[in-house]
Amino acid sequence: MKILEGKTITDVKGFLANGIYSGVKRSKKLDLCMIYSEYKAKASGTFTQNKAKAAPVTLNQQNIDNENIQAIVVNSGNANACTGENGYNDAVKMTEKVAECLNLKKEEVLVASTGIIGVPLEMDKILPGIEESSKILSADGGENAAKAILTTDTFSKEIAVEFTVGGKVARIAGMAKGSGMIHPNMATMLAFITTDVNISKNLLDKAFKESVASTYNMVSVDGDTSTNDMSIILANGACENEEIISEESADYIEFKKAIEFVNETLAKLIAKDGEGATKLLEVKIKEALTLEDARKCAKSVVSSNLFKCALFGNDANWGRIVCALGYSDANIDMDIIDVFLRNESESIQIVKKGVGINFDEDAAEKLLDSKTVSVVVNLKQGAYEATAWGCDLSFEYVRINGCYRT
Amino acid sequence: MKILEGKTITDVKGFLANGIYSGVKRSKKLDLCMIYSEYKAKASGTFTQNKAKAAPVTLNQQNIDNENIQAIVVNSGNANACTGENGYNDAVKMTEKVAECLNLKKEEVLVASTGIIGVPLEMDKILPGIEESSKILSADGGENAAKAILTTDTFSKEIAVEFTVGGKVARIAGMAKGSGMIHPNMATMLAFITTDVNISKNLLDKAFKESVASTYNMVSVDGDTSTNDMSIILANGACENEEIISEESADYIEFKKAIEFVNETLAKLIAKDGEGATKLLEVKIKEALTLEDARKCAKSVVSSNLFKCALFGNDANWGRIVCALGYSDANIDMDIIDVFLRNESESIQIVKKGVGINFDEDAAEKLLDSKTVSVVVNLKQGAYEATAWGCDLSFEYVRINGCYRT
Repeated sequence: MKILEGKTITDVKGFLANGIYSGVKRSKKLDLCMIYSEYKAKASGTFTQNKAKAAPVTLNQQNIDNENIQAIVVNSGNANACTGENGYNDAVKMTEKVAECLNLKKEEVLVASTGIIGVPLEMDKILPGIEESSKILSADGGENAAKAILTTDTFSKEIAVEFTVGGKVARIAGMAKGSGMIHPNMATMLAFITTDVNISKNLLDKAFKESVASTYNMVSVDGDTSTNDMSIILANGACENEEIISEESADYIEFKKAIEFVNETLAKLIAKDGEGATKLLEVKIKEALTLEDARKCAKSVVSSNLFKCALFGNDANWGRIVCALGYSDANIDMDIIDVFLRNESESIQIVKKGVGINFDEDAAEKLLDSKTVSVVVNLKQGAYEATAWGCDLSFEYVRINGCYRT
Repeated sequence: MKILEGKTITDVKGFLANGIYSGVKRSKKLDLCMIYSEYKAKASGTFTQNKAKAAPVTLNQQNIDNENIQAIVVNSGNANACTGENGYNDAVKMTEKVAECLNLKKEEVLVASTGIIGVPLEMDKILPGIEESSKILSADGGENAAKAILTTDTFSKEIAVEFTVGGKVARIAGMAKGSGMIHPNMATMLAFITTDVNISKNLLDKAFKESVASTYNMVSVDGDTSTNDMSIILANGACENEEIISEESADYIEFKKAIEFVNETLAKLIAKDGEGATKLLEVKIKEALTLEDARKCAKSVVSSNLFKCALFGNDANWGRIVCALGYSDANIDMDIIDVFLRNESESIQIVKKGVGINFDEDAAEKLLDSKTVSVVVNLKQGAYEATAWGCDLSFEYVRINGCYRT
């Protein structure tokens, strides 16, 4: 598997896309994105577990398992969430309009929205936007598509990889957006993945959903699980490999590795671009009794407001790490754990057998002043590990979310 | 029942206390508190569910059900948490020293600590402090005692009430401290309650523990459950009522009402004085299917970072309230709920049947700019209700916890 620098979702065979300004965002930034597969494609997706589901989530859950999914339309600036029956009807109208323009059935179109909650969609802007967008779909449009799904994000989140299946060169590419209300549960923020691999629907589901659990679901920016989370993959088989149908096959293993890498890369980019974040936090749990224990511990530390503030201030406050492990509800023995702080070049042990040890506080402060900081916890109990990603809690997070009129 | 303005824990018959500076706090503020009952007393307590329990928590859990508890010693500035076996031995030494000075058994003394995690206690300051403190115990010392348990709190938290049991005038008084790492789970921050009521140990436990579940356990400042949470009540029977032994008796009901009021008052003061808080947030859930559903909903909204930021900015962002209800894991129907914002004088409906309604945004902004803001949610499903308390998330919270060297 190799990473394709600078490539995006439209660098996968048979996928066209674009991003335009339809008139919804006050900032006049791109706010409407369309993704289209020239070939019939299978889809798999995961959706928010929040009971307050946005209209597009409800609609997609009905359509995701249809035999063919050939287009996705996404608007940003308005989440079409908590908008009642009218909101649902608007989501349906968006898929109808796409279907009409691209000569598809409306059940072959998925829809996503992100932005403000509770405000009716401006359909008088979105429907003409869809029409315009459908006319300029392009194999160069991936970059604009990735821009058009952003809200408070400060940069586009894209990744593309290439690998071989059944002697054919295959690709997977993805794009995602954060960056607040990020604490996915069995689902994610918005992520859209394209691949030209030919794979059975069952195995596509299996590979994608398993991967989501260890990537997007391990990210937290602020503990708030959104109403609009979704991640979707379209697989159009255009690379012409023989269909992957066995999970024991080398092809499936290669595909799984690639999808895992793509999802993890996007998950980390979302955490890094968390609202107000000055750095990426990575929490690695080692030697846990079960996978669930490892994940609980990792998410508990990565979600701790107090530790996130300490990280913002470059304070090696290990007590807050141990405290968050303690309330994680995981099966752990506090008296045997070790904790380390790491960046790319250094590692400093700060806790040994559950108790703080003497360490060089200045060196730790310097280490914490890195773009990526890892907290490594060894539970010394079992064979499982997990990693979660998040960011620090800064003044800027409060400003973005508290000072809406400035 | 009447509230005794300006009264404190030592205004309950038979209780003496004080607060002194032992030398632990760099700020030179009071940092050692002792509470003493002149009569034998029964105790009840609740303790943190965090697996990383501080030494005093572990020790008190062994002693809380002893027949007689006559003294509590509390130091602030150092939490004696994650300090291993030495920390436990230090906690034992503190009870031994108190016992020696007051002519008690060490098993009749409880101990609490609050402050920085992971630093060994300075016993060379604390033990002489205990000796000094034991010599100046006084019926006027409650006020200093309440000061000596504070850390980042900006004011003392005290309450006293008077009521009648079995023809005798009885009192309950309490003091507590917050104000960060506050998200108690079956326990609390530090709260110490004194009463002169004569009541069976069983009913003391029942009344106190039930009350803790609906008061301290319904507070969240930052979602971080501390290593040191505890709430303790001492009942010395000095008001000479006939022992309360039936939970059907009018006396028990009166006692329960009073303890509920005292605990709720302290819980609200803790929320109001949350780190960086500019206002008190009260979330009332009505007509829930079960008590558990009501509590889950209330705690989910009161803990939402995003809604807390909106509250700081006086933004009536009802979408964040609905979102937090949706991920609360409670059994609710999002399509029928109503949501109101309230302060002392006004009420504004913002959500009807799960959908935002037109409301006067300027009036809502003005309402939110109050010292106490209530969010009232009607789930329209059942007969249960619950209230949770918290505060807004401000720049100051980040400064307090992120800028430790300034």
